[in-house]
Parts: sequence; structure tokens; C-alpha cells
Amino acid sequence: MELAFIKPLIKQSDSKIVLLVMDGLGGLPLNSSGLTELETAKTPHLDQLAKEGICGLQLPVGSGITPGSGPGHLALFGYNPKKYTVGRGILSANGIGFPLKPGDVTARGNFCTIDENGVISDRRAGRIPSEKNKELCDLLRNNISLPGVEVFIETEKEYRFVLVLRGEGLSAEIHDTDPQEVGKKPLQASAFAEQANRTADIVNEFLSQVQSILHNHHPANMVLLRGFSTKPDWPTMKESFGVHAAAIAAYPMYRGLAGLLGMDIIQTGETIQEEFDTLKQQWDTYDFFYVHIKKTDSSGEDGNFDKKVEIIEQVDQMIPLLRDLNPDVILVTGDHSTPALHKAHSWHPVPVLLWSKQCRPDAVKEFGERACITGVLGPRFPAEDLLPLALANAERLEKFGA
Amino acid sequence: MELAFIKPLIKQSDSKIVLLVMDGLGGLPLNSSGLTELETAKTPHLDQLAKEGICGLQLPVGSGITPGSGPGHLALFGYNPKKYTVGRGILSANGIGFPLKPGDVTARGNFCTIDENGVISDRRAGRIPSEKNKELCDLLRNNISLPGVEVFIETEKEYRFVLVLRGEGLSAEIHDTDPQEVGKKPLQASAFAEQANRTADIVNEFLSQVQSILHNHHPANMVLLRGFSTKPDWPTMKESFGVHAAAIAAYPMYRGLAGLLGMDIIQTGETIQEEFDTLKQQWDTYDFFYVHIKKTDSSGEDGNFDKKVEIIEQVDQMIPLLRDLNPDVILVTGDHSTPALHKAHSWHPVPVLLWSKQCRPDAVKEFGERACITGVLGPRFPAEDLLPLALANAERLEKFGA
Repeated sequence: MELAFIKPLIKQSDSKIVLLVMDGLGGLPLNSSGLTELETAKTPHLDQLAKEGICGLQLPVGSGITPGSGPGHLALFGYNPKKYTVGRGILSANGIGFPLKPGDVTARGNFCTIDENGVISDRRAGRIPSEKNKELCDLLRNNISLPGVEVFIETEKEYRFVLVLRGEGLSAEIHDTDPQEVGKKPLQASAFAEQANRTADIVNEFLSQVQSILHNHHPANMVLLRGFSTKPDWPTMKESFGVHAAAIAAYPMYRGLAGLLGMDIIQTGETIQEEFDTLKQQWDTYDFFYVHIKKTDSSGEDGNFDKKVEIIEQVDQMIPLLRDLNPDVILVTGDHSTPALHKAHSWHPVPVLLWSKQCRPDAVKEFGERACITGVLGPRFPAEDLLPLALANAERLEKFGA
Repeated sequence: MELAFIKPLIKQSDSKIVLLVMDGLGGLPLNSSGLTELETAKTPHLDQLAKEGICGLQLPVGSGITPGSGPGHLALFGYNPKKYTVGRGILSANGIGFPLKPGDVTARGNFCTIDENGVISDRRAGRIPSEKNKELCDLLRNNISLPGVEVFIETEKEYRFVLVLRGEGLSAEIHDTDPQEVGKKPLQASAFAEQANRTADIVNEFLSQVQSILHNHHPANMVLLRGFSTKPDWPTMKESFGVHAAAIAAYPMYRGLAGLLGMDIIQTGETIQEEFDTLKQQWDTYDFFYVHIKKTDSSGEDGNFDKKVEIIEQVDQMIPLLRDLNPDVILVTGDHSTPALHKAHSWHPVPVLLWSKQCRPDAVKEFGERACITGVLGPRFPAEDLLPLALANAERLEKFGA
């Protein structure tokens, strides 16, 4: 649904909406049970929501399209993910709360390991701890000097950092230097538009200095850059949908994404329990809550089916706490599928349930991929339309037309 | 899905995709069993694919729209059939391998029968055999002369031929001369754009000469022309989707269609068995195979329910051969419905199954119109999105966005 269509229909209300995102929720059968992670998990509270509410499978971008976390989330926030595209650099910079200025060019960096021939042997430098990352960022920050450009190098988490270049006439139209494969050399930065040639040269000078400085710091002896980008100027959730929105997410990237839409980023802990405690504390202050659970995705990425089942069950245990807050609408889904079988994001549609006192319940009695096929949202609901539907259920949309 | 959206996501792979099109597959109940042709047919191998894969009903163009063979196929090839439109003349010329030049105007011709008043009594001239057609084409070719225009008249099959006009400043913006009904006279050619007036005059001169020449050749004593068109300049399947594609189709028109998208047209026989033998022979050379079965459609057009059932059963018997080739993705569907009840193409959604090792199977256990309603592809899947979905299942698409 276009934002311009929804905007005139927005009305104010005291109602509260909770969007609970289990990252990478959708799965695939992996063992002889023939059941997915969600189908395997014991989820009595989610099943009860499914019984009382409406269900379906949603497509974040489209059939066959494997969404990155950015597009997957933007769709859930009601923004067309093909139109509102954002680079990973911006997501990461926003995620760590870096005060970006207009024109700043950002990239997401990985510390990586290269061998004596300059070939990448580990794209994540053995997943060095965040403490080591901080040391290395200090080292780079104190030793790198680029003519006419201010350089910021900030730790994100583990092997990830954020690069920000500030200066006149910079451009983000630069290809990734990360070849996305081990066994290859890091790529030179190259411009895909002429006006980025100078910036590409600066990035290459940066990489050359990095390689000298990190030379003796195996396993983190080189860096890979991707998602060169500048900050987009998007309408906020308040402007688009009239909601005062809070983001409760333990991971920087998701906070960054929420920040791009003007959501308030709430400090929270690392555990699921802490995230729900934060929700409870903030309950009276906001009317839209985005709660992000990371570990469904990371256990999927690790190929750990049982762990993903366990995380889903932990989230299920939080539902009574959530219901006690007396929300008007609860939306539970994922930003994409991450089947443990795949160890990666996938294109499979994502289970979704919408609960409110206004639902016309369908026949779905449990929250699972196959059960959801028969729900009233259908097996291929466009994720982008979930937010308008939640607004309607929260009595936050006027009638269209006379 | 727009081609421009998919293109940057294409990645190379050794995986192989088979698109098996049973022309006019969808049907309607005709007898007391209440079952369609596909539901009546015994299809153990297709049912097994349905069980292991995902199912649905697809719409080639949209709800209520009866697709011609061109739009029906273009949608299956991943091209928006409303945007990529092609005249029947081009399809036929391409189908017989006629070496078209830019600016050539083509039309598909039927030999037909007119009575002493010039009224059409048979639009297909008693379905004269191809041999008779060749004689008549020779006769016309040797006797027709149009000022300033080169005329090519080539046999297609049975009562069908191809007309190609070559010359300066010709235009294809001309209405059909085929009134599509018996009991009417053939229409005069008329332009629907001013720049086609001269071409319309030339076509009318052509028709006048034809009528004199064929005067004594009852039942083929006149011709009807339709689908005036020039060759479109479309991106190939290789350009759009990165696949090296082969077309295995016994009928010229479908070869023509495939040729417009740069598929290699493989010589094959007339029978279903021969087509699958060709598939096997070509297996190592290509990574996308379009296999076209004509007789599901022609038996439907003839109102022959039992024959259509029989053809479907013959195709089912080929599935083990297909599976032995170890394809990565099998897509089975039709380009539209041709219910024997209708004796014509219809708007009813078309059963589709997609099989791969990457599917999250739904609950569909057999391949039939009603069984497919409950599949995860849903009851109104846009046919145009099938190809991207097949690419995803063949691991030929990158993730979209960070």
C-alpha cells in the first residue's frame, strides 16, 4: 500500500500495537518428523493467539525473493522494500548511534583474515570478540590519515565495524570490496558512477593503509567493506502512520533501521526476558512497539534447528506478559525465513499472526507454516500491507471515500 | 516481478530447471463424475511431485482474462504479458524459422472456404493437409505481384500459412481481416493508425489477387489474415534470467515464441515420447528446458474430454524419465485452461506444481484443480512470478538488500 494513500486515512487513538519480529522465523523440515522449527516448537501461547486471531504466510518482497534484513523489516514497517532501499553502511552507522551528517559516506566493515598471498581465508577473522575489535579500531583510527577527508572507524560488534568518511564531494556509488567468498582476494574499491571515482581512490588508499597497519594482527589482518551508502531522507513512522513508535532490539543493525524511520531506540538488555521487561517499562510512553528477537535468525544461520526451536519456545513464554499489558493489536512474524537446513536467509514465505479484539477469526488453530496456509491472510500476503491492517485493527484508520 | 528488479539478483549456477507446459491444461467437469480432465486422469507421478513439492493455481494474465498462447507463455517465461505483447504473425513467422528483417510486416494466414456470395463457410478450409497448403502457397507466390513490396508466403501447418511483406515504410497497425466467425465475409484490411493506410491498401490488393487466383480451389478458395506485427526487440532469457535455455516444442508457434526470447530451438519429433527423448539428449547442453505439449490444448479445443485425459496420462508416464535426469527444479503447468466443455481457451486459473529439493511442502497430495486450491502458491498465483520462484529454488538468485 502506498504511504500517500494511507496518510490521509490516519486517525489518532490511544490504542497500542505490538509488532513482535522473530528474525528469520520461517523454516524448513530438517529431520524425519517432517516439521519445521516453528511447527516443532511447543508454543501454547502463540497457538492461542492464532486461534483467537487471523493467520497467513507473508512475503516480504515477492515470490522467490530472499530478503536481506533491511527489506524484510521495511516491509513489516509498511514501507515498500523495493522503493525504500538502504545500504548496510547506513544501517550499521545508525545502529551504533553514530551522528551522521548529510553527505557522510558509510560502509559496513568486517575484520577478516588473509593469507600470505593476500587471499581471504576467513571473512570474519575467527569472529574476534568485540573487545579485540575496539583495540583494532583504536589502532586504525590513530594511524590512518586521508587527505581532505575525516575518517571515523567505530566498533559495531564482534568482527564488524563501521566506516564513515566525511568531506566535500564524496559519493557512495562504490562497489563492495567484499567478494563474499573465501579463496578470493579482497576487491579494489571501484565506482559505478563517474562522480564516485575520487571517493573510490580514497577508499583504496584507506585499504592500503589498513593492510600495512594490521599486517601483524592475524587473524584480523585485513578488512572488507560493503554497503557504501548515505543517509536517506524518509518519512518517519509518525509521519506515515501517526504512531509514536519505540524500538526494542538488542542488535545494533535493527536499532539503526528503526532509527531511520524516526522510532525511539530504547536501551534494553541482551536477553529475550530483558527485551520484554523493557516493553513493560515503556508501555505507557508509546503506542507502537517494535520488539526484535535476533536469535531465531542466528540459530538458523548456524544450522542449529534445536536452538531455533528453543528460542521460539522462549518467546512463546513471554506472550502472557505481553497480553497482560492489554495491547490492542499483536502482530507476530519474521522479517524473512532462515531455515536451519539452509543456514541462510531464504525466499520461503513467513508465518504471520495478527491478534486483536476486532478479528474475524479463521480456522487456524496453531502457529506454524503449514497451518498458516489456510488462514484468512492467505499463503502469500504482501508484508507491506500488514501495518495498515494492524492500524485498522487498532482503530487508527478512517473510512476511505464517502 | 519486473525484469529490472530480478536482473541484478541473478547468479550463475549449474542447476537445471525444467518448465513442462501442458498447453491448455486447466479444465472443467463435463460428465457426471464432476471431475475435470486433470482430476480424472490417473497421474501417480505428477501426484508424487505434488506431494513433495508445492502447488497452487496460477493466473497467466489476471482474473477473468482468457489468455492467448502468446501471453500465456510469456507469463510462464517471466515476462509481463500485458507489457510484452506480440502479434500472431511474428509468432508464426518465427515458428517456421523465417529469417525476418527489421521492418518486415507479418501476418498469420488461414486458408478458408467462402461460398458463392463471398461468405465464410469454413474458417479452416476443411483443415486441408500441409501438402495441399504447400501447393497453394507455391501457386500464390508465383502469381502475386505487389508494387514496391516483396511478398513471402510460407506454409505453416495444415490450413495455416505465414505472410511476410517487406518494403520501405510498411506498418503493422492493421486490423485482422478474419471476422472470427462463419456466416460473415472476410473483412477488408483497415489501418488503425494513419501511417498504416498505404500498407492496408497493399494488403487489400494482395487479398484481391488471392481471391482471383484461388477461385477454383475449393475448399481453400480464400484466406483470412490476422495478427499483423513486426518483430519486437526483447531481452533474451539469458539476459533476463541468466539461463541458457532450450525449447522443445513440436509446434511451430511455440518454437517461434521461444525464439523471440533467444531460446535455442531444438529439433524434435511430433510425439510426447520424442520430445522427452530430445530433452534427455540435450540434458548436458542447457540449464533451462521449456518442454511444450500441444495435444492437451487441441483435444480440449476439439471438445474431446477423454482424449485430453489420455494425453495428460501419457505425460505423467514421462515423469520418471524426467526425474531420472536429476533436475533441480521441475515446474509443471499450462499456459491457460482449455476445458473440453468450452472447446476453447478459458479464463479459469491453471494448476501448477513446483518441485525442488528446497520446497517447504504444503498439504497438497495430488495434482488437480481443486487439490491445488489449498497449496502454498494459493489459488491465484501470478504466472509471471513462477520463473523467479523457480530460479530461487534452483539457487540462482542472490539475496535482495542488506
